[in-house]
Amino acid sequence: MSFSFPILPDGHLLAIEGLEPPHIGALLDLAESYALLNRQGKTQRDLLKGRTLINLFFEDSTRTRTSFELAGKRLGADVINMSVSTSSVNKGETLIDTATTLNAMHCDLLVIRHAQSGAPALLSQKVSASVINAGDGTHEHPTQALLDALTIRRRKGRLEGLTVAICGDVLHSRVARSNIHLLTAMNCRVRLIGPPTLIPAEAARLGVEVFHDMKAGLAGADVVMMLRLQRERMTGGLVPSSREFFRFYGLDAEKLAWAKPDAIVMHPGPMNRGIEIDSAIADDPERSVIGEQVEMGVACRMAVLDVLARDLRRNV
Amino acid sequence: MSFSFPILPDGHLLAIEGLEPPHIGALLDLAESYALLNRQGKTQRDLLKGRTLINLFFEDSTRTRTSFELAGKRLGADVINMSVSTSSVNKGETLIDTATTLNAMHCDLLVIRHAQSGAPALLSQKVSASVINAGDGTHEHPTQALLDALTIRRRKGRLEGLTVAICGDVLHSRVARSNIHLLTAMNCRVRLIGPPTLIPAEAARLGVEVFHDMKAGLAGADVVMMLRLQRERMTGGLVPSSREFFRFYGLDAEKLAWAKPDAIVMHPGPMNRGIEIDSAIADDPERSVIGEQVEMGVACRMAVLDVLARDLRRNV
Amino acid sequence: MSFSFPILPDGHLLAIEGLEPPHIGALLDLAESYALLNRQGKTQRDLLKGRTLINLFFEDSTRTRTSFELAGKRLGADVINMSVSTSSVNKGETLIDTATTLNAMHCDLLVIRHAQSGAPALLSQKVSASVINAGDGTHEHPTQALLDALTIRRRKGRLEGLTVAICGDVLHSRVARSNIHLLTAMNCRVRLIGPPTLIPAEAARLGVEVFHDMKAGLAGADVVMMLRLQRERMTGGLVPSSREFFRFYGLDAEKLAWAKPDAIVMHPGPMNRGIEIDSAIADDPERSVIGEQVEMGVACRMAVLDVLARDLRRNV
Repeated sequence: MSFSFPILPDGHLLAIEGLEPPHIGALLDLAESYALLNRQGKTQRDLLKGRTLINLFFEDSTRTRTSFELAGKRLGADVINMSVSTSSVNKGETLIDTATTLNAMHCDLLVIRHAQSGAPALLSQKVSASVINAGDGTHEHPTQALLDALTIRRRKGRLEGLTVAICGDVLHSRVARSNIHLLTAMNCRVRLIGPPTLIPAEAARLGVEVFHDMKAGLAGADVVMMLRLQRERMTGGLVPSSREFFRFYGLDAEKLAWAKPDAIVMHPGPMNRGIEIDSAIADDPERSVIGEQVEMGVACRMAVLDVLARDLRRNV
Repeated sequence: MSFSFPILPDGHLLAIEGLEPPHIGALLDLAESYALLNRQGKTQRDLLKGRTLINLFFEDSTRTRTSFELAGKRLGADVINMSVSTSSVNKGETLIDTATTLNAMHCDLLVIRHAQSGAPALLSQKVSASVINAGDGTHEHPTQALLDALTIRRRKGRLEGLTVAICGDVLHSRVARSNIHLLTAMNCRVRLIGPPTLIPAEAARLGVEVFHDMKAGLAGADVVMMLRLQRERMTGGLVPSSREFFRFYGLDAEKLAWAKPDAIVMHPGPMNRGIEIDSAIADDPERSVIGEQVEMGVACRMAVLDVLARDLRRNV
Repeated sequence: MSFSFPILPDGHLLAIEGLEPPHIGALLDLAESYALLNRQGKTQRDLLKGRTLINLFFEDSTRTRTSFELAGKRLGADVINMSVSTSSVNKGETLIDTATTLNAMHCDLLVIRHAQSGAPALLSQKVSASVINAGDGTHEHPTQALLDALTIRRRKGRLEGLTVAICGDVLHSRVARSNIHLLTAMNCRVRLIGPPTLIPAEAARLGVEVFHDMKAGLAGADVVMMLRLQRERMTGGLVPSSREFFRFYGLDAEKLAWAKPDAIVMHPGPMNRGIEIDSAIADDPERSVIGEQVEMGVACRMAVLDVLARDLRRNV
């Protein structure tokens, strides 16, 4: 697949905000082709041959780190994992010193997850590598939004005009933020559903509708996207009890019946079963597309790496 | 080497129990050929080329994880390590959700170690990958039994008719359990030696002899297989003191003299020197085959991966 | 590049002490050629193809572990990381048992970092692999000295006759020790600068000058090599306060002005900014060569692996 325009013009993927619909569409098309290759067990080792991809994770993650590692290896890159709980950051090294180090090692592609919003953008100014944001604080998680969009598009045949309800702890969710930017850019109707304490104040200017009641918010929804309740980021009196949260905002069969009969159910994982989602719904093969989200995750990351590597070649 | 029958008919290696002698023999023959290739520094990168092997370890392990990683890499697989102390399981993800994730990533071969007996079998029903049990609770550790058998066969020229004494903490040992199944299937005479509190009640129905006295148990033994004292799995008044344990059940030159003059000494590692085995015996190049066990470990894991990959190809 | 003599005659790189100038020069020449290849994005996958390199780290390290991992992968080796905080050493396995294990796995190249001085030398007697010391206690860190020397040589065009000031916590620094051996062997004039409590007693017999005052010590220096203040290795009343240390021994613009006008500034990383070095100096592109040190690190490790692999082939 070739493109007549640079897909990620600044050579990084730091956020969905700022990407134009043609760029998003091209990334999804390319990812779709990788999804097909993955199902056929085919790889494209030459694409990133001789390239060094470093997974720099300042926060724990099974699936995201593994997904990028697989994506990089399937395209032939040398993949190096740096989990920073066991690293020299313990000894007081600053983020910038780490960047300088990676830079000097001729890292081509840098995947970074960090607890602080903006850390990947900061790094991208300091390194010669192409930087991919794998989640930064409560800011963005762009590849998650891409894989969510691809999953929706495969199931619904399109993005335009769909009603997508994003439910639960929107306030602390970088997944929600990236999805809002992507889905509104692609002309979805986006609704946020959650208790007032978990809906961000800036929702008003994001082009979304806000609901505090699941019944009203789910009415007519094509897609029900549940979020993880991020207890670890809550403080003080804001932490809801699991039982109460599930009663009002947890997705079960009764609440799902308020959405369209063919509405699909999504969750970025890892799930808190019985808190934000009932196990029967999570495991329902007719409605849940949670497995397909993970599958599309590898494909989307391959597409992003591929696109960034094209730019690397262009810049040589 | 080609086989006229499927070696692991259900596409997994979950346990030794249930394998037939021809299957075990074929695995050992194949492993023997890999041992030879390893000594010659030869690899067979094409066998698992394009295949994804995931090492999913819910318990710490140096040698087993490394052994599988080496085996996979020498056969050309993409190997991904997941050590679960630093993973999303911390955030409450269930085993099944992890499985769904791996599945969606098109994992071909899944090596799993887990503190709960039966976890690999449970996973094998949920994933499309071939599952290899790398140790589950007190249940089984099948590749350990294969490497032990191969080591014995190389040193003694056969398995049939040998007397093998398995000594120490049998109760908590998945290594012992897998060895009992394999060695009795191959017509060894198996003896268990240990204090009554560390011999499992089901010993009676396993076709083995039980001894509580080392002198009686070691008399005429061809193989003395020491076990690791698993203090971390003992509770309450059952924990023996090191000194007392060594006095009655620790292997030293005096006790070893009770076995056959050419008896070999084995240990699955890691050893508690001075508790279950004396250093002089562990390091005796004439009697100890502990290094060869590790060497055969890589070879046996290559054989298992190879056999399962043949089945993968057969199922395409 | 071919050599008419064995560069590392005993098949290991355990220390700089004992290496002759022609050996050091040949390693630096080879590393220089790898630095060029790295900048061009070229690899030499065939050199270590089929070889197993194990990174055995008993102490945390981001940059050294990654640097060796990259070096090994760029030369085509199978690289296995063993971080020992999550390993069977937790269960009481001895260093020698670990060695036996690695040996049995047909490890070709063993990179080891250990808190105890002499651990790599001990291991080298027990394993068939070529051993590379990646830092042992307060003893040596030979590849660091090589990369420092290469960086100096590239910037200054030579080593001979240069005045190199090594400043700060010399007592606890294996980096300093390796540099002293290498630089004096190559006819540099080496000065140690630090408080009396942080200068080792054996300095007198190492062929260096000792200064307790930065002004006197830096006068006429071509190279200012700062060391990391190793607080974690200090005990009792010896721990200086950061503020006081920086005032007397921290490198800032004022103190750097005492050295030659074109003196370069080095630091092995990770830096304690504001303690042993001022950020303005660390980030000054005219004076600081800290990034280049990291870059030369990968190149030097490739050279060492290459040379040891030649010896492996010679011994077949």
